[in-house]
Amino acid sequence: MSADDVVALQPINTLVVIGLGLIGGSLALSLKSAGACKRVVGIAPDPLVRQRAIERGMVDESYASIGDVAAQLGEGDVVFIAVPTLAIREVLESVKGCVPATVTVTDGASVKGSVLEDVKAVYGKVPEQLVLGHPIAGSEQSGVEAARVGLYANHRIILTPTEETSDQHKDRVADMWRAVGAEVLELDVENHDAILGATSHLPHVIAFSLVDTLAHDSHNEDIFRYAAGGFRDFTRIASSDVVMWRDIMLANRDAVLEAIDLFSSNLAVLRKTIAESDSDELTEIFSRAKQARDQFTHVMDKQKS
Amino acid sequence: MSADDVVALQPINTLVVIGLGLIGGSLALSLKSAGACKRVVGIAPDPLVRQRAIERGMVDESYASIGDVAAQLGEGDVVFIAVPTLAIREVLESVKGCVPATVTVTDGASVKGSVLEDVKAVYGKVPEQLVLGHPIAGSEQSGVEAARVGLYANHRIILTPTEETSDQHKDRVADMWRAVGAEVLELDVENHDAILGATSHLPHVIAFSLVDTLAHDSHNEDIFRYAAGGFRDFTRIASSDVVMWRDIMLANRDAVLEAIDLFSSNLAVLRKTIAESDSDELTEIFSRAKQARDQFTHVMDKQKS
Repeated sequence: MSADDVVALQPINTLVVIGLGLIGGSLALSLKSAGACKRVVGIAPDPLVRQRAIERGMVDESYASIGDVAAQLGEGDVVFIAVPTLAIREVLESVKGCVPATVTVTDGASVKGSVLEDVKAVYGKVPEQLVLGHPIAGSEQSGVEAARVGLYANHRIILTPTEETSDQHKDRVADMWRAVGAEVLELDVENHDAILGATSHLPHVIAFSLVDTLAHDSHNEDIFRYAAGGFRDFTRIASSDVVMWRDIMLANRDAVLEAIDLFSSNLAVLRKTIAESDSDELTEIFSRAKQARDQFTHVMDKQKS
Repeated sequence: MSADDVVALQPINTLVVIGLGLIGGSLALSLKSAGACKRVVGIAPDPLVRQRAIERGMVDESYASIGDVAAQLGEGDVVFIAVPTLAIREVLESVKGCVPATVTVTDGASVKGSVLEDVKAVYGKVPEQLVLGHPIAGSEQSGVEAARVGLYANHRIILTPTEETSDQHKDRVADMWRAVGAEVLELDVENHDAILGATSHLPHVIAFSLVDTLAHDSHNEDIFRYAAGGFRDFTRIASSDVVMWRDIMLANRDAVLEAIDLFSSNLAVLRKTIAESDSDELTEIFSRAKQARDQFTHVMDKQKS
């Protein structure tokens, strides 16, 4: 067993969560619940959010700025940045100005390419303490009240370390996520953004667009009145946090556009099939999709059991 | 109280369900459970389906063809046609050949315009005994095993009577649905097909198309591995019955194409907004969609309570 492994298996001394919304707040609550963290500090500019985080037992202390607590941090401590993607650069600037190089720094943003660019712009390089990550978990709920223990249990965390990232810091972040019941995987930044662009960002684009389309349909008054449960599930993600998703689309723009284009051309083929009343081809397309989706469900169910 | 009202409040004598899948089987089970029907007869060509329907207590008797039981039917009896949309014409032909004009005949197809055309083609007119209807309830599950008591509770049933439909038969069908806990509404055939084309058929087109797109993406091996719960909800309807949905798309082709075109042009606008990194406009579109979807959820929750 190497010295790195010994460090990695230690509980976190102090966890600092910057951003006390669904993602950051749920990690704080889950780590405290698991007893995997000696002290949790919350950072949020809004005093009401800080107060609720204390009241909910989410954090032990809270401050307006990372600068208020950074001098107390050292090896064994973790800073988790959980703010909307396009707010990360500003947070990184304040972190760089005060957080010691021995502290592990990670994030939860849904796009990794833009954050990596932010890191390079702010630090002039990728510091070995920085471990970019993305928990594949969430909800259409958001904010400090939506945070909950268990959000990450049986969910996947994708870490996207670069060659500069030290194993010690990476292992600490991986252990942190495993402590809250998550499975940790690794991808390179580019693959992460392409895959999530297709499986997560594209569905959100479609859901927002569909609901917006229907809300402005000429049958507007009636349109939602006659919708069923399937529609409710299908559009759930259109109730997601606007700023978070706006940032994701802008930060992962190229991959999102590519995914939209691929989908649009596939939809055009399906449209043509319907227009031509091509029953055999329609059966073929629907069967392929049903098979793929059933297979996906099967894989997800196996993960959970 | 008119004579019609008295008739309408009587329980159904014999209910004949043609098609013992999710829709037909669930009505049979729910009516039996509610004690709102003296006798339930199931019609299905497959002997194994008939056997399971008997075993599940869904029907009292079962036959391969409506001709086997039609001579026993009269006023106070209801025939419910619950087969895929494009199979309805053939069923109507057999119904016309043997079911007395005093029997109430209704259906559960998701498209009403095509069924009305079938009725006119088969009968040469719209007989007063025919009450077209559509329960806005379903599941991605299908078949005799998926049928269940309670599928229609707190769901809406849209009846689309024409001027030829008699009030007596319409009231009997409405009472039948109310007996299983459903709310009964009326729409004309054209509005029904336009509205359902947008709120139900279009989302299914999109879901099938999205899953098919992703299953053939170059990242195929990984693509579903990194998908989250939101994706699962979003694509649930792509696991729906292939034949049922193929028929719906073909039967409601024009309305579905119109809905696809409206959605595609809206998606193109959203794509342009992302391509131009227009943060304000993106916020505006997402906010509008979130507001509409939250409002829809609010309305649905009120219905259920």
